[in-house]
Amino acid sequence: MHANEAYSALMAHMRDVVALSQVSGLLGWDQETTMASGSAMQRSEWMRAMGSVIHAKRTDPRIGEWLAAIDMAGLDATGQGNLRIITREYERQSRVPAELAAEIARVTSASQGAWAKAREAGDFAGFQDTLSEVLNLRRQEAEALADGGDLYDALLGEYEPGMTAVELDVLLGNLRKGLVDLRLRVGESTVEIPDLQGSFSSDQQMLIARELAGAFGYDWSRGRLDLAVHPFSSGSFDDVRITTRVAENDPFNCAYSTIHEVGHAVYEQNIDRKHGLTPVGNGASMGVHESQSRIFENQIGRSRAFTGHLYRRMGAVFGDIGIESAERFYHVVNKLRRGFIRTEADEVQYNLHVLLRYDLERALIAGDLDVGDLEAAWNERFAADFGFAVEGAANGVLQDVHWPVGLMGYFPTYSLGNIYAGELYVGLRGDLPDLDDDLTRGDASKAVAWLGEKIHQHGGIYQPSQLIERAVGHAPTEEPLLAYLNHKFGGIYQI
Amino acid sequence: MHANEAYSALMAHMRDVVALSQVSGLLGWDQETTMASGSAMQRSEWMRAMGSVIHAKRTDPRIGEWLAAIDMAGLDATGQGNLRIITREYERQSRVPAELAAEIARVTSASQGAWAKAREAGDFAGFQDTLSEVLNLRRQEAEALADGGDLYDALLGEYEPGMTAVELDVLLGNLRKGLVDLRLRVGESTVEIPDLQGSFSSDQQMLIARELAGAFGYDWSRGRLDLAVHPFSSGSFDDVRITTRVAENDPFNCAYSTIHEVGHAVYEQNIDRKHGLTPVGNGASMGVHESQSRIFENQIGRSRAFTGHLYRRMGAVFGDIGIESAERFYHVVNKLRRGFIRTEADEVQYNLHVLLRYDLERALIAGDLDVGDLEAAWNERFAADFGFAVEGAANGVLQDVHWPVGLMGYFPTYSLGNIYAGELYVGLRGDLPDLDDDLTRGDASKAVAWLGEKIHQHGGIYQPSQLIERAVGHAPTEEPLLAYLNHKFGGIYQI
Repeated sequence: MHANEAYSALMAHMRDVVALSQVSGLLGWDQETTMASGSAMQRSEWMRAMGSVIHAKRTDPRIGEWLAAIDMAGLDATGQGNLRIITREYERQSRVPAELAAEIARVTSASQGAWAKAREAGDFAGFQDTLSEVLNLRRQEAEALADGGDLYDALLGEYEPGMTAVELDVLLGNLRKGLVDLRLRVGESTVEIPDLQGSFSSDQQMLIARELAGAFGYDWSRGRLDLAVHPFSSGSFDDVRITTRVAENDPFNCAYSTIHEVGHAVYEQNIDRKHGLTPVGNGASMGVHESQSRIFENQIGRSRAFTGHLYRRMGAVFGDIGIESAERFYHVVNKLRRGFIRTEADEVQYNLHVLLRYDLERALIAGDLDVGDLEAAWNERFAADFGFAVEGAANGVLQDVHWPVGLMGYFPTYSLGNIYAGELYVGLRGDLPDLDDDLTRGDASKAVAWLGEKIHQHGGIYQPSQLIERAVGHAPTEEPLLAYLNHKFGGIYQI
Repeated sequence: MHANEAYSALMAHMRDVVALSQVSGLLGWDQETTMASGSAMQRSEWMRAMGSVIHAKRTDPRIGEWLAAIDMAGLDATGQGNLRIITREYERQSRVPAELAAEIARVTSASQGAWAKAREAGDFAGFQDTLSEVLNLRRQEAEALADGGDLYDALLGEYEPGMTAVELDVLLGNLRKGLVDLRLRVGESTVEIPDLQGSFSSDQQMLIARELAGAFGYDWSRGRLDLAVHPFSSGSFDDVRITTRVAENDPFNCAYSTIHEVGHAVYEQNIDRKHGLTPVGNGASMGVHESQSRIFENQIGRSRAFTGHLYRRMGAVFGDIGIESAERFYHVVNKLRRGFIRTEADEVQYNLHVLLRYDLERALIAGDLDVGDLEAAWNERFAADFGFAVEGAANGVLQDVHWPVGLMGYFPTYSLGNIYAGELYVGLRGDLPDLDDDLTRGDASKAVAWLGEKIHQHGGIYQPSQLIERAVGHAPTEEPLLAYLNHKFGGIYQI
């Protein structure tokens, strides 16, 4: 077979795989936003049937033949990106025995329900055996994937291709030191920041959410906004949907959930159209994806300039919100709060939650920590980094769905995303010195365009760290993120 | 292979086919109700990929081997029903050459757009060549399917298995005579019936729509109600969704569109659960489906008893609607109107629209009528049966999407549905003599339960005419429908 023919045949095959995977994604969206509760059993049959079809296509032995016939050096960057992703997926699917994959699917599906019950009861001991089983299966999978290499790296590679635990240990270890130090200093500040009071109508919150999505470049002609219990963004190319939630006493929840998900969605929408329905037609990694949602939400959305705009819009829509100035509003938006829950944490403490999970799952995978000792280890680490004790397993080791469903090696991509966002924000500010003038008017388009050029358009062509390095000119470190946080919160808390 | 093993293997295979077909159905629902306009191109790629996967599974040569190994006589009624449906589908897929099927898909997809433009321009001549091409391809398909038999029967069999044109000619010919006669007599009546006047809010119409769906037994835990340009019901088993539309000046449109779609949906929802995800887990045919939507909408929904309930509910929700009594309201609901459009027609004239199309498409398929003469033939027949002249092709030969997309052999199932509904209504009234007491209170549950027992629960186990015969004790004829219409409209118009 000629190399060009093999590449064309492979890409035609992958077009179906990508399309069918996107269909599965829509089924997931529908399940979370639209489906009636009584349709759940049938839906799981649909997902099983789709999964079976996609798996058969992903493990089609012709893929191996096509890959062998293609001359990688003869391809351009796009072709090489596609080949890299296809090869990785194919090797992954080939290395993991079908029985193990099926067993993992079965156990993690059941364990989610067991976890939900255990969390409600605050009973980690009752969930321990299930978690051990999940961990054991994922370690077996990691052994199959690692091919003699590091087990944690094998799992991490699924979410952040090319990243290693050795690199993470340095980046995240440094990040932890800086964050604990900053948290302690904020704790000693005498600055008092009030909370937002009152009730804010759902319709008005959604009006603002739609405005915000537009301000951050969301393309309404290729997506939609709905409500979901846990906001998410879903889809790629020409159908990228976002969800948000409304808490009547906290309009920031809706506003910043929306901006966060718009960050994910606009990334997907802005990938060069020519990559639609190809393997590089998705974001580069979980970490890079999170960098976009977080830079939209935090560095831009929670900036003094943009909160100035939001202050005026909220005043116009809700009437008097009881905060006397835009500067005060900026402080309220960015206030540090004592809390147990990762997903509710502020910019300073969020990554401390993630780093705790990273170190614990590293130890679990390495066999240095038993599941039986996990809760104690969690509580000890929490007290050390946050300065107060966990109250109950639902506020601690049982709070996240990730481990119960087998997502081990996933957590560090959250902090990597913040580290990438820190790097990108320096570059963005350097290239757009007058950005605040726009943000004050509620116009984020130049920032979005800068990210579009540096990150979005490329989709999955480059490895994540390579993509960031191309954008900022050097390998990413935690320093810009720490400098940004120290500067911002040093100002707000006068420390 | 043992017969039992073959049956189990076949049914496991079909479970995937059914599930994947249902996924395609959800994609269609999403496209009509939810999807953004800019997602259309990607969606067609999804449909193509799903169609390709489903086609490959439907034509899997193992199906032929399994079918050959199964002893039909050793199966119960459910097994025989499944075998009958699977065999029919497999033969259909095997007889039609893949290139012809692909060409039909390509041409009918493009012709829909051409038809929409031609209809807007009222230009049948400009659409003639496209329609000829579609007709030619469908005749080729019919030849492949008919295997020497009648071409029209081959097309009809796709929608109404077991029915033949010879039988239809008798049933529908008699029906036409009776309806033309009734229409003429109503035309000579001196009774004057007013129209509903005013504006009716969308929210209030949807409130009534939801009440009506509940009154007719729609299970909200396994479905939902949304808006669509052309109302439809979609899905089967545990996920059956309905749509409706709202016209601010005509609340009957929303109410009766809803009841009609609930008829389709409740049929699917009430099929015995054990048939879920199997070939018999759908309604028996298009005709039987339409019998349920029409008996819900017309015989029950437009009855004097049920309109009495609706009159009180509309008064309570909208306030004074300007109609002095329930009896008068019953007349307004059932008023005959002069009109060109099938989908807007009343109970008397609706089937005249269908019969016109049936006779014309019979002649087209038989080669007795050229597409070039179709518009003239339509207009001549319309004037004869309706008593006035068609004004423009958009009001005549171009009004329906069916022929442009290749749906030839489909139209008669609408009238068959009405004929079946006429038969079933006699049985239902005979078994439930006090039904009007319930309907007057807005309670259709006993009627729905009767239909559930006689029709719904059986799904596709029996051939359509066999199913109706089991329910009413004899082969269906047009006489009960005509007797019902003569009685009802004879009373309203005092003729």
